[in-house]
Amino acid sequence: MIAIPPVEHARPAAPVLSCGIAMRENCDLNADMGESYGPWRMGEDAALLDVVSSCNLACGFHAGDPLTLLQTIEHARARGVAIGAHPGLPDLAGFGRREMQVSPAELRALARYQVAAVQGCVGAAGARLRHAKAHGALYHMLARDAALAGAFLDGVLALDASLAIIGPPQGALRELARAKGARYLVEGFADRGYQADGSLLPRSRPGALLDAQAGLAQGLALARGESIRAGDGSVLALAIDTLCVHGDGAEAVALARALRVALEAEGIAVRAP
Amino acid sequence: MIAIPPVEHARPAAPVLSCGIAMRENCDLNADMGESYGPWRMGEDAALLDVVSSCNLACGFHAGDPLTLLQTIEHARARGVAIGAHPGLPDLAGFGRREMQVSPAELRALARYQVAAVQGCVGAAGARLRHAKAHGALYHMLARDAALAGAFLDGVLALDASLAIIGPPQGALRELARAKGARYLVEGFADRGYQADGSLLPRSRPGALLDAQAGLAQGLALARGESIRAGDGSVLALAIDTLCVHGDGAEAVALARALRVALEAEGIAVRAP
Amino acid sequence: MIAIPPVEHARPAAPVLSCGIAMRENCDLNADMGESYGPWRMGEDAALLDVVSSCNLACGFHAGDPLTLLQTIEHARARGVAIGAHPGLPDLAGFGRREMQVSPAELRALARYQVAAVQGCVGAAGARLRHAKAHGALYHMLARDAALAGAFLDGVLALDASLAIIGPPQGALRELARAKGARYLVEGFADRGYQADGSLLPRSRPGALLDAQAGLAQGLALARGESIRAGDGSVLALAIDTLCVHGDGAEAVALARALRVALEAEGIAVRAP
Amino acid sequence: MIAIPPVEHARPAAPVLSCGIAMRENCDLNADMGESYGPWRMGEDAALLDVVSSCNLACGFHAGDPLTLLQTIEHARARGVAIGAHPGLPDLAGFGRREMQVSPAELRALARYQVAAVQGCVGAAGARLRHAKAHGALYHMLARDAALAGAFLDGVLALDASLAIIGPPQGALRELARAKGARYLVEGFADRGYQADGSLLPRSRPGALLDAQAGLAQGLALARGESIRAGDGSVLALAIDTLCVHGDGAEAVALARALRVALEAEGIAVRAP
Repeated sequence: MIAIPPVEHARPAAPVLSCGIAMRENCDLNADMGESYGPWRMGEDAALLDVVSSCNLACGFHAGDPLTLLQTIEHARARGVAIGAHPGLPDLAGFGRREMQVSPAELRALARYQVAAVQGCVGAAGARLRHAKAHGALYHMLARDAALAGAFLDGVLALDASLAIIGPPQGALRELARAKGARYLVEGFADRGYQADGSLLPRSRPGALLDAQAGLAQGLALARGESIRAGDGSVLALAIDTLCVHGDGAEAVALARALRVALEAEGIAVRAP
Repeated sequence: MIAIPPVEHARPAAPVLSCGIAMRENCDLNADMGESYGPWRMGEDAALLDVVSSCNLACGFHAGDPLTLLQTIEHARARGVAIGAHPGLPDLAGFGRREMQVSPAELRALARYQVAAVQGCVGAAGARLRHAKAHGALYHMLARDAALAGAFLDGVLALDASLAIIGPPQGALRELARAKGARYLVEGFADRGYQADGSLLPRSRPGALLDAQAGLAQGLALARGESIRAGDGSVLALAIDTLCVHGDGAEAVALARALRVALEAEGIAVRAP
Repeated sequence: MIAIPPVEHARPAAPVLSCGIAMRENCDLNADMGESYGPWRMGEDAALLDVVSSCNLACGFHAGDPLTLLQTIEHARARGVAIGAHPGLPDLAGFGRREMQVSPAELRALARYQVAAVQGCVGAAGARLRHAKAHGALYHMLARDAALAGAFLDGVLALDASLAIIGPPQGALRELARAKGARYLVEGFADRGYQADGSLLPRSRPGALLDAQAGLAQGLALARGESIRAGDGSVLALAIDTLCVHGDGAEAVALARALRVALEAEGIAVRAP
Repeated sequence: MIAIPPVEHARPAAPVLSCGIAMRENCDLNADMGESYGPWRMGEDAALLDVVSSCNLACGFHAGDPLTLLQTIEHARARGVAIGAHPGLPDLAGFGRREMQVSPAELRALARYQVAAVQGCVGAAGARLRHAKAHGALYHMLARDAALAGAFLDGVLALDASLAIIGPPQGALRELARAKGARYLVEGFADRGYQADGSLLPRSRPGALLDAQAGLAQGLALARGESIRAGDGSVLALAIDTLCVHGDGAEAVALARALRVALEAEGIAVRAP
């Protein structure tokens, strides 16, 4: 079991978010889902759908297949979980985690196609696509490369200009999304270590993956709008809009549940923005 | 050059369509497009877009890729050609021409996903998806198998109940589409031989592929609403709504052009229904 | 736990195999392995490699990827398990379980390529490919269709005429393999129900999958060379050369272990032929 | 028609290769082949097989399929053309031209699998695999990255230590191949511009692709062992072992033919080393 830290004491006496807004009343929890492929299962989607308020659905290029997609949409809709698309690089064997040198024109088309497919399937199920979030290596490429970030936004927003874009607290995607007037939701990670610039520690580095206890503490801090500490000890005020919890392994689901329980215990509702 | 037959004499004195409607004033010409994949080119899309009134775009499962799709949509929209989706079996190496034992649930998801992707990309380009037509082996499976036909229709029509479904003059898909109140467009082929029941002669059989001269004559007859002859000599009154022309090879494009010229010469406008 | 039946009494007093050979002294246990793909795990390969004497490695078309293949070869070689190739239809999303209308020329090439890839990788690891066995839908297609069976054998045996072919007790593949002088190993299944003609009950039919207790009893009977009963009660004398055990799920591994323990308890060594 | 330059005058009076060996008596011409995929054709393989002495066959990951592979092997063998494998990145839509962040362990497996598949198929056709050459982006990655170059060599040479490795005149692959005692064949390109360090000008840069006349002149110079000029005017003495000619488009085949005619006219035989 993961012990829930005594949240009363961890909270500052006068809670003020780094972005200047007073104490948060609700927080979005999001998780990546629909990542099974054909006969291969991945993730604890059913369990997580009882915990999160938003989900990001694999679109078939790095993971997911049409049948998995439709079933996951159905389950998410039935539980009132907000649905987003989770487009990735066209690399099934590498699960979209290997950087690929795609051109802006290719990426624009890849993003447009993948999000369109999910958008249509969500609409056919009687729901509405709420957001898009890049997966894996693409997530990081978009923070770093303005040409790709612009192509991604152009690919996605032409489908629906009101779609929210989920991404990291810093980088090219955020800047371009704001410049275009798009709704950008800053994402934080409960169980991943950070670098001083607000980016994630690469998975290959020590401290990249937090244990459940540290993940819970960091997740709560992020959800409350408190500062956290990067791997080098520097203080980060990330002002997140949504907190990502992972769904691989029983421990990850337990962490997500513990986060939700703790948030609700202190009066922060888990819901999509 | 393909000589255009003296159409005045081929036409009956009192033109009446087999379906009882008087002489046709316009006819839809459709062609399959967007079938290039990555570095591999297929079809003469640019040339055909000046000839046809409707196009059916490969959706990425048997052919096509996102960049090809977006470019073809752009070209079709610029020329005012009506756009449809052309979903196929998930078999790139086999170009969707090998029958596969997909279940109705799988097919429903495959059709939903593919048409949704094209529908969204068409909408983002400022146009509207007009129809869907199954590709290759799937086209014939849907005529034969009511469970698959129902799954296909359920997959597609939930995206937009006003989508037209293009298919053969007979079989399960047509019956189910009509039973559901869907708009069904009967398709004829200029350059393919027919069997007595109105289905196409399989490609492996003699007479399956007509030469340009015979294709032009058959195409004109179909477009005018006249009867044609099946391979066994029996008379077929197909009452088609749209005529498919193929785009592989210079001769196929020449046939399509000759058909259009001949139709316009006798006052039949080539346009989407 | 699976209780091991009192094998002493189940054995006939004068054990004679249906093929006329006296009491079996050893039996091959084979399992399908290397079926993980990219980030997706499948099967309990490590656990099974301690139980079986032969393994059939997915070749990358219906499952498996090059890294998984090399690692599984390494593990099999280290444990002295005989290695075979397990080629399948080119259908990753369908796991090779959906029949596809491949032509004999296509199948010959598909089989040649897949087995060659595994053969070379096995050789590079200092071992030698021992056999080939078709996977999933292809397994059944080869029993039924002589043209495909011939193409498969031609595809595989040109790589090494001494390769053993594993297949069902009846059908086209067996007949053609014997006609060509190839070594054919008859396979039985512990946990699958049979039809009166010696073919497996399709997975969709009741009785297709036996529970652990029935699977152990049937597996032991097959391994001993005793008759078993088909689903309709008729008696089958299958005279198998190798017994397939499955590796999905903890229960399947437990059944495989129980089979091995029981066989060894009655003096039947588990080893490759 | 491409005019053949007056080769008598272009040749130095006392022909000495840059590597110190006297006038070359023969030269290998190699071409990439087997790059069709399913219904999509690429390259003029049949025409080129009458011109070249070696071919590099796509292995199915960036291009090629099993049926294409077997047919191309058959044609190459019938014409006595030496056969090599041409493994690439697992990116069909990108034709292996987009760099991907593969790990050394992944690359080792990718190279082993692909070359094993071709090696086996060549052997089954009664021929013997002679060499391996990386395709597209991988070709350049191996020149730059020693860890990947080592993994590639380890992947390939364990299949057959006598396989020749074809690669660029400089870089990590060449150094490691020589350190391991492998046979390394330096490759030159007739129709590509060079940089001062002996690497190719990227396709995106002016001067990257030479026209037929310049390509013929450069190809002849390389084949004779003469120096050529890089894009910046600096002199390059590449001492190549094999000259690559491309097969896309009628002009490329014409250039290849012109090269062969010119080489034979001055007594240099076109044959594999």
